[in-house]
Amino acid sequence: MTKPIYILNGPNLNLLGIREPHLYGHTTLAQVEQRCLEAAKRLGLQIVFKQSNVEGELINIIHEARTEAAGIVINPAAYSFTSIAILDALKASDLPVVEVHVTNIHKRESIYHKSLVSLAAVGVICGLGPLGYELALASLAEELEVKQ
Amino acid sequence: MTKPIYILNGPNLNLLGIREPHLYGHTTLAQVEQRCLEAAKRLGLQIVFKQSNVEGELINIIHEARTEAAGIVINPAAYSFTSIAILDALKASDLPVVEVHVTNIHKRESIYHKSLVSLAAVGVICGLGPLGYELALASLAEELEVKQ
Amino acid sequence: MTKPIYILNGPNLNLLGIREPHLYGHTTLAQVEQRCLEAAKRLGLQIVFKQSNVEGELINIIHEARTEAAGIVINPAAYSFTSIAILDALKASDLPVVEVHVTNIHKRESIYHKSLVSLAAVGVICGLGPLGYELALASLAEELEVKQ
Amino acid sequence: MTKPIYILNGPNLNLLGIREPHLYGHTTLAQVEQRCLEAAKRLGLQIVFKQSNVEGELINIIHEARTEAAGIVINPAAYSFTSIAILDALKASDLPVVEVHVTNIHKRESIYHKSLVSLAAVGVICGLGPLGYELALASLAEELEVKQ
Amino acid sequence: MTKPIYILNGPNLNLLGIREPHLYGHTTLAQVEQRCLEAAKRLGLQIVFKQSNVEGELINIIHEARTEAAGIVINPAAYSFTSIAILDALKASDLPVVEVHVTNIHKRESIYHKSLVSLAAVGVICGLGPLGYELALASLAEELEVKQ
Amino acid sequence: MTKPIYILNGPNLNLLGIREPHLYGHTTLAQVEQRCLEAAKRLGLQIVFKQSNVEGELINIIHEARTEAAGIVINPAAYSFTSIAILDALKASDLPVVEVHVTNIHKRESIYHKSLVSLAAVGVICGLGPLGYELALASLAEELEVKQ
Amino acid sequence: MTKPIYILNGPNLNLLGIREPHLYGHTTLAQVEQRCLEAAKRLGLQIVFKQSNVEGELINIIHEARTEAAGIVINPAAYSFTSIAILDALKASDLPVVEVHVTNIHKRESIYHKSLVSLAAVGVICGLGPLGYELALASLAEELEVKQ
Amino acid sequence: MTKPIYILNGPNLNLLGIREPHLYGHTTLAQVEQRCLEAAKRLGLQIVFKQSNVEGELINIIHEARTEAAGIVINPAAYSFTSIAILDALKASDLPVVEVHVTNIHKRESIYHKSLVSLAAVGVICGLGPLGYELALASLAEELEVKQ
Amino acid sequence: MTKPIYILNGPNLNLLGIREPHLYGHTTLAQVEQRCLEAAKRLGLQIVFKQSNVEGELINIIHEARTEAAGIVINPAAYSFTSIAILDALKASDLPVVEVHVTNIHKRESIYHKSLVSLAAVGVICGLGPLGYELALASLAEELEVKQ
Amino acid sequence: MTKPIYILNGPNLNLLGIREPHLYGHTTLAQVEQRCLEAAKRLGLQIVFKQSNVEGELINIIHEARTEAAGIVINPAAYSFTSIAILDALKASDLPVVEVHVTNIHKRESIYHKSLVSLAAVGVICGLGPLGYELALASLAEELEVKQ
Amino acid sequence: MTKPIYILNGPNLNLLGIREPHLYGHTTLAQVEQRCLEAAKRLGLQIVFKQSNVEGELINIIHEARTEAAGIVINPAAYSFTSIAILDALKASDLPVVEVHVTNIHKRESIYHKSLVSLAAVGVICGLGPLGYELALASLAEELEVKQ
Amino acid sequence: MTKPIYILNGPNLNLLGIREPHLYGHTTLAQVEQRCLEAAKRLGLQIVFKQSNVEGELINIIHEARTEAAGIVINPAAYSFTSIAILDALKASDLPVVEVHVTNIHKRESIYHKSLVSLAAVGVICGLGPLGYELALASLAEELEVKQ
Repeated sequence: MTKPIYILNGPNLNLLGIREPHLYGHTTLAQVEQRCLEAAKRLGLQIVFKQSNVEGELINIIHEARTEAAGIVINPAAYSFTSIAILDALKASDLPVVEVHVTNIHKRESIYHKSLVSLAAVGVICGLGPLGYELALASLAEELEVKQ
Repeated sequence: MTKPIYILNGPNLNLLGIREPHLYGHTTLAQVEQRCLEAAKRLGLQIVFKQSNVEGELINIIHEARTEAAGIVINPAAYSFTSIAILDALKASDLPVVEVHVTNIHKRESIYHKSLVSLAAVGVICGLGPLGYELALASLAEELEVKQ
Repeated sequence: MTKPIYILNGPNLNLLGIREPHLYGHTTLAQVEQRCLEAAKRLGLQIVFKQSNVEGELINIIHEARTEAAGIVINPAAYSFTSIAILDALKASDLPVVEVHVTNIHKRESIYHKSLVSLAAVGVICGLGPLGYELALASLAEELEVKQ
Repeated sequence: MTKPIYILNGPNLNLLGIREPHLYGHTTLAQVEQRCLEAAKRLGLQIVFKQSNVEGELINIIHEARTEAAGIVINPAAYSFTSIAILDALKASDLPVVEVHVTNIHKRESIYHKSLVSLAAVGVICGLGPLGYELALASLAEELEVKQ
Repeated sequence: MTKPIYILNGPNLNLLGIREPHLYGHTTLAQVEQRCLEAAKRLGLQIVFKQSNVEGELINIIHEARTEAAGIVINPAAYSFTSIAILDALKASDLPVVEVHVTNIHKRESIYHKSLVSLAAVGVICGLGPLGYELALASLAEELEVKQ
Repeated sequence: MTKPIYILNGPNLNLLGIREPHLYGHTTLAQVEQRCLEAAKRLGLQIVFKQSNVEGELINIIHEARTEAAGIVINPAAYSFTSIAILDALKASDLPVVEVHVTNIHKRESIYHKSLVSLAAVGVICGLGPLGYELALASLAEELEVKQ
Repeated sequence: MTKPIYILNGPNLNLLGIREPHLYGHTTLAQVEQRCLEAAKRLGLQIVFKQSNVEGELINIIHEARTEAAGIVINPAAYSFTSIAILDALKASDLPVVEVHVTNIHKRESIYHKSLVSLAAVGVICGLGPLGYELALASLAEELEVKQ
Repeated sequence: MTKPIYILNGPNLNLLGIREPHLYGHTTLAQVEQRCLEAAKRLGLQIVFKQSNVEGELINIIHEARTEAAGIVINPAAYSFTSIAILDALKASDLPVVEVHVTNIHKRESIYHKSLVSLAAVGVICGLGPLGYELALASLAEELEVKQ
Repeated sequence: MTKPIYILNGPNLNLLGIREPHLYGHTTLAQVEQRCLEAAKRLGLQIVFKQSNVEGELINIIHEARTEAAGIVINPAAYSFTSIAILDALKASDLPVVEVHVTNIHKRESIYHKSLVSLAAVGVICGLGPLGYELALASLAEELEVKQ
Repeated sequence: MTKPIYILNGPNLNLLGIREPHLYGHTTLAQVEQRCLEAAKRLGLQIVFKQSNVEGELINIIHEARTEAAGIVINPAAYSFTSIAILDALKASDLPVVEVHVTNIHKRESIYHKSLVSLAAVGVICGLGPLGYELALASLAEELEVKQ
Repeated sequence: MTKPIYILNGPNLNLLGIREPHLYGHTTLAQVEQRCLEAAKRLGLQIVFKQSNVEGELINIIHEARTEAAGIVINPAAYSFTSIAILDALKASDLPVVEVHVTNIHKRESIYHKSLVSLAAVGVICGLGPLGYELALASLAEELEVKQ
Repeated sequence: MTKPIYILNGPNLNLLGIREPHLYGHTTLAQVEQRCLEAAKRLGLQIVFKQSNVEGELINIIHEARTEAAGIVINPAAYSFTSIAILDALKASDLPVVEVHVTNIHKRESIYHKSLVSLAAVGVICGLGPLGYELALASLAEELEVKQ
């Protein structure tokens, strides 16, 4: 039986759909999880969906994924721009990683432009809202199929 | 009847699948077009698929799309990093734009890191190979549905 | 009945008054809390006073404050200069925030010059020692009065 | 008989008056040409008025102007900021050049701040809308008179 | 009866026509004033023409213009590049401002490249010699007509 | 008998409450002075309240304060960012200095980010509006008490 | 009886010897601890050996070391390059600190070049693999001997 | 039979020998072609000699060379410093490329210092005038001999 | 009869010998003037010795010197680093200028490193205390002798 | 019989223990050599110990080491920060190199921060005084053992 | 009788053909000299061929060339990037200088990109291996012929 | 009996008066030495006058001066801008150092602007030609008198 895809969410994403909806939209993180479950079903994938505000906890989950997951979808939120530690953890996981951002980070203030995490990702999807998560799953599905 | 999506390809993409396959893969641009046609069919969309090596011709096509298209998928290739003129044309089009890169540009040399075109895009997809085009179409399909 | 002001303290502030007193003075964090309690009383305010060395815990407390507090006084210490995640959490809180630093950060080494957190603050007070906390409370008292 | 003034317009200016009117105003390029014709008449000048979206075509026209024109008014639009080739062509023309921008480029985003073309211009006029073209013609009229 | 246009000149411009004529030409400031008077007459405008070497005096005159003038033409000379105070004064005046430089500042040493004052101007004219003042008056004439 | 506190105001602050009220609020400088007088009374302090648009005059006043004042509250406005001379004057005064800005300068354009004057200040208060002046007086009151 | 040396390990070091062995070698963290125990024995030192992925937990342990340890050996891994908070904690500890990196960070990508933690260290050893820890202990042994 | 060497010339080189002869000398492009023909004869090589002012046309010719040529000599002129697209085309050609500049670009203004095209070249010759073309042919002759 | 040398002193120099003597020494400006008078006598020169805190006044004096002086010794103090206007005035004076700084500015904080005024000076002397003025006079004496 | 380790010392190190002892300590270079001899004995190594103030002589010695030594310990002193030539020589030697600095260069002025030589070193030890040399020898001993 | 061409080689070039052959090739410096002798014979030139690792010795040889040589071919190796002294010596020689690099320095690490020596050279040849020396001689032959 | 002043001259100064006289004048180094001898006589000083093109030799002479000289006058020429090693040697000498440049380095190209050596100098004199040496001696005479 195949391993699941880990879908990880970084700091403040527990407030998705609530904080600054003009920027992040009205979909809550629970609704994102629901959409991911349905998309995974369609694609024949299992998922594990997690969120944490603590950088070190995200690293711990990535370490867990190293042995338990087939791939990672990650929205590292603010840690994208400051965490070399998460970058290192993802590199160490040796798994296919797809990075997702709800907003188009390249159109925001300059502190949000340069994701360190992208250096460990197969691909990056940004600005497409919650749909970005589904597309990331679809791309991992294709990626894993090719490998088999 | 709905307008088509314009799928535009920038310089050197006519050699896709032929040049540097370790970097860009083995899928040719004709095969990408074929995959886009099938994906569009599934999504109920029409597409117009074009490529040019000339910056000004790409601008002319974007101007045409302004009145003839419902949205734009663009892989501006090298012009992403140097063309303010294409950025201005896309802004002027007032259409939803999704930017696609076959490779993860953030993992390449620094001259490939900063896309100017992203400033006019709803979203950006990079590093997912030819699949990126299909996902871009899917996101435009959702975008256009929401608008109706 | 009105909600309290949350007074948050970042990393290493549990050592205030103990570490490097030539730089930070001899007042301990407990004494700062005591002064804040007295000042709050004079101003007719309630306060909740917290400290943590963990970035994610501070984010969690700010999320709590979102619904439980009327305003935030924060001394983010070292995280001022590195944490976009705390900046995002404060923005999401939609509360009036006053940032306090015990020392005049502009006179220290350059890594202490540029607070990211200031981007989410109504105002900033630095270099006035523990008195800065009291002045921050006074300014929030006026701010809240104006709103009523 | 005297040679005409070449008035050259760069990429996207064919959409002037149509795209982003809050930024560029409502006057179309045809109306600008009309105003230029009338101004030229008042000043006793002939004009040749052209627009192209292709960098190399603009260079070709500048080469033509080298032998056929008495001076150049150029609004290089986006190419102002990226084209050393147009700069070189203007330098090679050995003609008096006046650069015009419809908007005040110094008040826009930083990618629009630094015109390379200014290095080959006698003078620069920006932010005065279509009137800028007329003023540029007036300055060339004086320039040419002085030379005679 | 309409208010006049204030024409302000910054430091060292009292030496215009005398200092470094290979750079600034042979027209004196008195002659510039004479040309401005004649142009104003043609355009149906009144002018007030002033020069000062003192940054604070220029600010005072701008404050005076705030209530007494219909618009400002300013050649801030060396203060263009260092004076945020003049920039603030111009912003506070709430008047249309046109900035003039006798030389093409973009072709000079890099310290003369970036005018801070441009951030408060409707438009900028440089490199056209004393004529620049007349063109600036013409553009303000049109600007004021439109407003009426 | 104790010496007074000098409260100094830099360029354009005579327009406080009048220019750009969305940024600076509606309180005039006269009203700020009134609030300072009342706060000083409560704190048992004397004040001297001055404003100038001239950099050199501010320096003269700081020199006067050197022998006549017990401390300085200064809002250097635009000179904060360009005047090393005022910085030197404050250093030479050997008095406790508290710097005040009505707005949160760290949230404004980058030219307003780096105050040179902060290098000579005991502390800095910004973004708290006119209240900032009162808080600065309160902090000097405590500072002077400690010294006695 | 003398206090022990604290040996602290930052994020992802729990995977040492497992992740990217071409870069970090095949020695596991448990084996590093074993080598440190043996080296400490030879040098007549006690050690406490810890690892955490959480920045705030590392700060807590450093605070504990402040009163319980005679010195600190720290491999801050990715936090070397981003954590001013750990730098502050080490400064506050007032203990001799030796920084260790398994790899030669100066030969890696530029984000790994500039350790902030070095500002609080007596010395730095990098690129010598697990042996670096032993050499750090040896240097602290000499350091402590000198002090007695 | 062996394939020819393509000799490509970028924007404004059609004016060689005519424009700014104090900088570029008096030899015309036709004369350069003649010298190249003679040198090729001596070296036993065939050549194809082309010039274009249009970036995209140069790319098209490089694509043609990919299958039709044995090597490329290119003087990209102004596009050297701005065209990532030409760089990409040359990389894709998989041919030996020698870059030539008539002038010593390192002694000119800084915008002419950094050729992007050099990243795809075997070698670079600059400052030796038209002779540079001949030397480039000689080096390709040696290069191709070695490969056989 | 020969014209005098103007010796100009910038902001805060009226406090020389009084402010921060560990940095600037104990010699007052009056004593510097006395030493200059004696040195001038020995060298057969006349001097005019002035000081001002106002940038614009210094410019006026430099303009006066233009016609009344044979050369200028200037210690521009803090204006050295910010005043392009003084630089322009000195250039316009067409006189030999020697710049003096009491301290070695290159050993101070970086904001004191780059004098703009040096661009208009024949030579610069710094770090030699009040003697620097005498040496500057000596060098002007030689300079003027050569010219005769 | 095994080859010796070359221990090389750069400019001014002949004054070690004599110049600025508050910075470099009181141990002379002769004493460092003595300590190295003893450490080498314990480790079963031979050493050759040299110092030169001349960059080119250090390069000559490194070339000699290429064939005569088993490894290099180098303290390049000031040349660390400026000599690409020594870096190139070390790369060419194809020997294991350990770089030593007596002081913690990362805590000094910024011109001492970035060692070019580190790019050719296996590892770097700094801030541990003369002990650093011994530890470097120990690490080379282990390195060479592993290779056998 | 004509003077010879001096061919100078900088640090580490005595190891050419031996060190890092994947980078520099297998031709030794002696073989380069042989090729130069033969090329010189063909071109009717005399040569003097030298190498030194010492910057000052290279300067001495350039001073000698000033009076004894007709031109200079120099491969300054690592000193290209750091030696203003060699640049000054070449400028002082008043001879035609051609700079040669065996590798294409623009494709290497950034510390090898910017040659200071190019500022004193007629032309630069890089990346063409030992052939570069011959081509440099050929260009000097033409240069000297033109002068006669 | 008092120790002499060492007057040191860096690379290419042996050509003084010969190379580029429009820049450096016509006085030879021998004539400078003669002027220094006469000036020293007047001031009651002994001098030792040296020149070398080799950085390491200059360091050796500075080490000699450490014990044999009362002060140093140094014109480091090109090494001013690149040699941290000479800076370190001068710091280690613990002697009063006066730096001299014949030209005004601040008016030359930017590579000549920032002297590292100034960090170890009491004072700097530039742009006053050979007279600068005499003035440097005069300042050392005063410096040494004060110390006695």
